[in-house]
Amino acid sequence: MSGRPVRVCTTRRAERTADTLERLSRDVDLWVASASDDGRAYLVPLSYHWDGSTLTIATPSASPTARNLIRAGWVRAALGQTRDVVIVEGRVAAISIGADPELEDAHARSTGFDPRTLADEYVSLRIAPKEIQAWRESNELDGRVLMRDGAWLE
Amino acid sequence: MSGRPVRVCTTRRAERTADTLERLSRDVDLWVASASDDGRAYLVPLSYHWDGSTLTIATPSASPTARNLIRAGWVRAALGQTRDVVIVEGRVAAISIGADPELEDAHARSTGFDPRTLADEYVSLRIAPKEIQAWRESNELDGRVLMRDGAWLE
Repeated sequence: MSGRPVRVCTTRRAERTADTLERLSRDVDLWVASASDDGRAYLVPLSYHWDGSTLTIATPSASPTARNLIRAGWVRAALGQTRDVVIVEGRVAAISIGADPELEDAHARSTGFDPRTLADEYVSLRIAPKEIQAWRESNELDGRVLMRDGAWLE
Repeated sequence: MSGRPVRVCTTRRAERTADTLERLSRDVDLWVASASDDGRAYLVPLSYHWDGSTLTIATPSASPTARNLIRAGWVRAALGQTRDVVIVEGRVAAISIGADPELEDAHARSTGFDPRTLADEYVSLRIAPKEIQAWRESNELDGRVLMRDGAWLE
């Protein structure tokens, strides 16, 4: 026994990136944080569509999330589990419902709901990730950054 | 057949409140949303201690979450699952580490970590819930408010 603490083995970046891409493809919901211009935080779960490089959510135009994200042009969102975290930060572009039928079809297939069939006015919000982090528990906080400035790290 | 749509049966408030109290006691982690004074949203998962009426989290004093929550004096947080949602909004009070050893002991027992043993300076943030909502899927959005102005609804 050397007395040296056992080094906790963490998942390598290539594996974390592969796991994260798989989570983005397979998961349906994410937590969307947003803020008003006077610094009031908001948080809701929403379903999303992942097309391999961007996430699309749809929410009522009058909702705090739509207002906040359109104002900021930026989102911080998290997939699924508190002990298997994927945090996505990125730019937000608003797309009026009806403007991109192909995207709306894909969103409806992925999320199981189609805002075109609803009475409320919705807006599509397309998120282009700029930074992605993934970790399970605190021992994996080192090496959690997988994407920076929109590029997956090698 | 009357042609009238079947009314989706939702969980009654007393049952939702009991389930929510059980979740608050049993769960360990929550998603904490916060915002800077210039309207930039932040989101992290943190472990908490629930004492039956307040939640206590602890995070580095220099972290965005600590700065944002102390500034706003307010938090919006969510427990666990995107399809079994518990949203808590409430006032935040900052308590210096060392000021309330009993609370710090309880927090360490609930969360499995003790900021008093760490080199970084931490702060305890005690959340007094003012509004609590709970729902599973969209059919349960009606009736999701369980607490208002700090009082559980009858």
